[in-house]
Amino acid sequence: MTIPINKIAVFTSGGDAPGMNAAIRSVVRACAYHNIECLGIYRGFQGMIEGDFKPMDARSVKGIINKGGTVLKSARSRDFLSPEGREKAYQELKKAQVDALIAIGGDGTFTGAMVFNNTYKIPIMGIPGTIDNDIFGTSHTLGYDTALNTVVEAIDKIRDTASSHNRLFFVEVMGRDAGHIALNAGVGAGAEEILIPEEDLGLERLLESLRRSKQSGKSSSIVVVAEGDKIGKNVFELKDYVEENMLEYDVRVSVLGHMQRGGSPSCFDRVLASRMGVKAVESLLEGKTNFMVGLQNDKMALTPLENAVKGQSKINMELLRVSDIMTT
Amino acid sequence: MTIPINKIAVFTSGGDAPGMNAAIRSVVRACAYHNIECLGIYRGFQGMIEGDFKPMDARSVKGIINKGGTVLKSARSRDFLSPEGREKAYQELKKAQVDALIAIGGDGTFTGAMVFNNTYKIPIMGIPGTIDNDIFGTSHTLGYDTALNTVVEAIDKIRDTASSHNRLFFVEVMGRDAGHIALNAGVGAGAEEILIPEEDLGLERLLESLRRSKQSGKSSSIVVVAEGDKIGKNVFELKDYVEENMLEYDVRVSVLGHMQRGGSPSCFDRVLASRMGVKAVESLLEGKTNFMVGLQNDKMALTPLENAVKGQSKINMELLRVSDIMTT
Amino acid sequence: MTIPINKIAVFTSGGDAPGMNAAIRSVVRACAYHNIECLGIYRGFQGMIEGDFKPMDARSVKGIINKGGTVLKSARSRDFLSPEGREKAYQELKKAQVDALIAIGGDGTFTGAMVFNNTYKIPIMGIPGTIDNDIFGTSHTLGYDTALNTVVEAIDKIRDTASSHNRLFFVEVMGRDAGHIALNAGVGAGAEEILIPEEDLGLERLLESLRRSKQSGKSSSIVVVAEGDKIGKNVFELKDYVEENMLEYDVRVSVLGHMQRGGSPSCFDRVLASRMGVKAVESLLEGKTNFMVGLQNDKMALTPLENAVKGQSKINMELLRVSDIMTT
Amino acid sequence: MTIPINKIAVFTSGGDAPGMNAAIRSVVRACAYHNIECLGIYRGFQGMIEGDFKPMDARSVKGIINKGGTVLKSARSRDFLSPEGREKAYQELKKAQVDALIAIGGDGTFTGAMVFNNTYKIPIMGIPGTIDNDIFGTSHTLGYDTALNTVVEAIDKIRDTASSHNRLFFVEVMGRDAGHIALNAGVGAGAEEILIPEEDLGLERLLESLRRSKQSGKSSSIVVVAEGDKIGKNVFELKDYVEENMLEYDVRVSVLGHMQRGGSPSCFDRVLASRMGVKAVESLLEGKTNFMVGLQNDKMALTPLENAVKGQSKINMELLRVSDIMTT
Repeated sequence: MTIPINKIAVFTSGGDAPGMNAAIRSVVRACAYHNIECLGIYRGFQGMIEGDFKPMDARSVKGIINKGGTVLKSARSRDFLSPEGREKAYQELKKAQVDALIAIGGDGTFTGAMVFNNTYKIPIMGIPGTIDNDIFGTSHTLGYDTALNTVVEAIDKIRDTASSHNRLFFVEVMGRDAGHIALNAGVGAGAEEILIPEEDLGLERLLESLRRSKQSGKSSSIVVVAEGDKIGKNVFELKDYVEENMLEYDVRVSVLGHMQRGGSPSCFDRVLASRMGVKAVESLLEGKTNFMVGLQNDKMALTPLENAVKGQSKINMELLRVSDIMTT
Repeated sequence: MTIPINKIAVFTSGGDAPGMNAAIRSVVRACAYHNIECLGIYRGFQGMIEGDFKPMDARSVKGIINKGGTVLKSARSRDFLSPEGREKAYQELKKAQVDALIAIGGDGTFTGAMVFNNTYKIPIMGIPGTIDNDIFGTSHTLGYDTALNTVVEAIDKIRDTASSHNRLFFVEVMGRDAGHIALNAGVGAGAEEILIPEEDLGLERLLESLRRSKQSGKSSSIVVVAEGDKIGKNVFELKDYVEENMLEYDVRVSVLGHMQRGGSPSCFDRVLASRMGVKAVESLLEGKTNFMVGLQNDKMALTPLENAVKGQSKINMELLRVSDIMTT
Repeated sequence: MTIPINKIAVFTSGGDAPGMNAAIRSVVRACAYHNIECLGIYRGFQGMIEGDFKPMDARSVKGIINKGGTVLKSARSRDFLSPEGREKAYQELKKAQVDALIAIGGDGTFTGAMVFNNTYKIPIMGIPGTIDNDIFGTSHTLGYDTALNTVVEAIDKIRDTASSHNRLFFVEVMGRDAGHIALNAGVGAGAEEILIPEEDLGLERLLESLRRSKQSGKSSSIVVVAEGDKIGKNVFELKDYVEENMLEYDVRVSVLGHMQRGGSPSCFDRVLASRMGVKAVESLLEGKTNFMVGLQNDKMALTPLENAVKGQSKINMELLRVSDIMTT
Repeated sequence: MTIPINKIAVFTSGGDAPGMNAAIRSVVRACAYHNIECLGIYRGFQGMIEGDFKPMDARSVKGIINKGGTVLKSARSRDFLSPEGREKAYQELKKAQVDALIAIGGDGTFTGAMVFNNTYKIPIMGIPGTIDNDIFGTSHTLGYDTALNTVVEAIDKIRDTASSHNRLFFVEVMGRDAGHIALNAGVGAGAEEILIPEEDLGLERLLESLRRSKQSGKSSSIVVVAEGDKIGKNVFELKDYVEENMLEYDVRVSVLGHMQRGGSPSCFDRVLASRMGVKAVESLLEGKTNFMVGLQNDKMALTPLENAVKGQSKINMELLRVSDIMTT
């Protein structure tokens, strides 16, 4: 028998991503629409343990749809790793009469949520929020589209300098163990070479490719390197290697860093967040639990949290081929 | 029996859209990859008639992936409406030994291409390039995603003023007869009301909604109006009507206009253009003709040009509902 | 004898401008630095009459330096035009123990402040906040630099379309009776012609210039028109006139509108606002009154409010000449 | 007796900066206006030695005013360090009938130009193009304003993440030995601390300041570090030092890198470049030589190249004080 849901709590956890605020807003407004109470939990699992809650009504999320970061903040929580910590969190939720949870974050967030649900059976729904797009069950995670735009705009700027000076640039982008950002932003920025963990090009073939590119008359080059790529130990060692083996190149490195996580979300991410928030609330109201809301074939779809975490978000092999053709 | 394809000509026609240059670049590089010659036709059908051609190799499209507009230019052509004009175009193409055509544009472009193919049987492939997203057979047309970002960024700015002054703004956005831009950008910008041609709200209900919004404590409002919407005769008359009927509101109008068509394409549009260009070239090489390349379920797919033009790109009803919930 | 100042109230009035929030933040923090209390007045003179005040400490202005609009809101106030309204305002200020006022706005705001000071002798300092740059005594008003960037970015986009289609665009920009925005943004956007109220080109010479431009091989043109320009009755009539007299041109109009007033302020405006806020507070503490803080030769300087309002911010004649040379 | 000037050659040298293309365009158009021939020299002094020249007319600089980088490219030239190299350059210029030179770049560029003029007496005029603003004789160098906007936009994004996670970020910005970018962008971004080479805060006082900031309730902090700052050996060592001494802080580093040099120039830089180009050409035509064009008190002014290189562009001490007040 399902317990009727009168109050939903929402939180963000893990690395922040553009669109998280838009998702919070959507959850809150969907609750208001269905006459459900909504509670915001600050600082993820740690705030859950500390009872750091705030009631949220439709007006309280005004003006946040276009803001980066998360108004509910995010934090790592060691305490939540222990049964005692989780018990404390449960007691706080019970005290606040929370009937269900919506977790916005990545696989670490979902894993924590599943462990919690395993013991305490409180209904839970996940919304994938991470710029890395490394979650199974959704074609796009929240923040991914915005990060791609941030990266191509940054590389467009670096290209101005590269082509003014006939330089080779290694640009390291985020993505953890996945090459989604590198591959898509690399194609979008017209990179001459893209290094991703999913495909090992090999140092020798990279050199060959750069030599060929140089001979074909290209005077400058951008190589986009995923942070998870294993070709060299890191992007600075890669630079040294290329400089030693290609004397004629002036090589530079740019690590784009944390600015990739911030910024006002793109329209795509704002709309996706709005759809996901509604879907998460309404799925809970329909009695569903332990699912992640996702975008599949342009429609909202549910994936068991377990699959979302264990499954693999595969790189688009067709795009990998397009990338090769573009750098002919 | 299929004639082998040794030379492909590409042109842009109709209203320009961000991503057209990225598509031209992709077509040219895919031709180079397959050792096919590529010819650029300037100013669409008119340039075809005048033989305004230019051979394009991989280097000739360097540095255009991030540029708005179209390096091949676009133009209206009355001459092409007559059989004599089309005959002249055919002779020019024959003289230049063109074996197949790739047309980048919207439904007017595709209709012209089909009429031409009907008589002259030259293989033809379409790439949907228009910010309006009003083409059947693809979830996204080239330029649509960029236009959405341009619109939400503009409305974010208008919101600064609206909320500083407690004003009501009617913001007219492009989209021809379709409400795609208005609906998506309206949700993305957190608009209080969205008026699209696909759904007739009615003036009385608009007033009611605005009154309710005001009573609920909202001090400012943004109403996004699709240019094709029929609620008032135009957005200025709409303003007058609301001012007459809601004395307490200071109402302003902003028609975003042609800046919506320009700008550097988003990463999404650059990647989509790169994929579409390759698909168009390779489909021609496989002997296909009279199709449009499109994005369906995140994959490349072909749609008969006839269907692309006649079919209707339907508004996302789920998003319409999400929009209502967001403005609770 | 000067009364010691223990509490300063700050307000924004007139049209909002990017940088107003940065100025509010600076006033508040400068008060905190000097151990003075600070009060925010909502909705300008109207809020002053209604006693709509809020104490502000250093933390209360966190995170607003990069926001457009004004967190203190702005409003027109008819009540303040009457002696009764002003008396009411004075009583509210007295009740709140306000010793001095800082007014952020344009000439309307400063005129109101002077009238008030005339009767009630409360020390007052002005900060010029308007995108129009039409205030005497400062080389730059707050928001002007940001608006220039907004305008050139919009025209860059329109240029994509103009040059793709060989069109002539009339782009109307803000600036009230002054041509500062039109002249500077016109030069910055590489406009072929710039129409400003300070210089009457005349319709016949405009046509000549456009014809010459066309003959010299230019295929597209951007004409930037200041909203205060008197050449035609308005920009749409201008379009009609040119179309009637130059058959070969496809002419379009774009009125950029209110988005020019919004957006995150440029670094220049944020820094200028920070400097002006400190200068305003410290000038009051030094016993000065009835001045406007301004930027003169890159330094902070004071101008009597009366001169700021009556004096004329002159157009840069050297730049007008540069503009002519650029369109050779 | 002055030799009449019939042909001017223009080149860019040193690090590229936004606005260089706008300056090239202005030089070319000013030459056209005065019926002077104009020659572009590719790759700075190296191209001068190699005779890598291109005649430029008014149309040849179409559409570059809004592009970052330099269409004339830039390069280091060892050959120019030797008398033989410079003699070769002189012979190439003589062969091409060049009467005068305009050098766009920083102090290295100007020094090279002066050495050259010393021997060969060819009239020379400098335009300051560098994002670092470290040139004496102009309040703003070309590219400086654009770089400030690029930096504050990047830090705004980093702030999203910093405040979502309660983190301390060290953000390293460019500027060579000068703190102009760090100080202005730091104030513009609302940084909690700004470390510049012109002022040695000392590690101990930095820690104190961060502790005070934390105690005052600030949950996140941004410290902007000029690349030329000497407080720690580099920004990563600074991070380690702070982490060791302030256990409670999660510290991150972001090195903004080369994207600071690129991007479409701001309106300010486009207008400044347009003014400087005209002034440089007309100063040569008036018989002047060995000067740099600069902005002083909002007006064009000339400074002897020798002073431009030797003099010091001082940090704005008033702004340093404003910065302290803002972080109260």
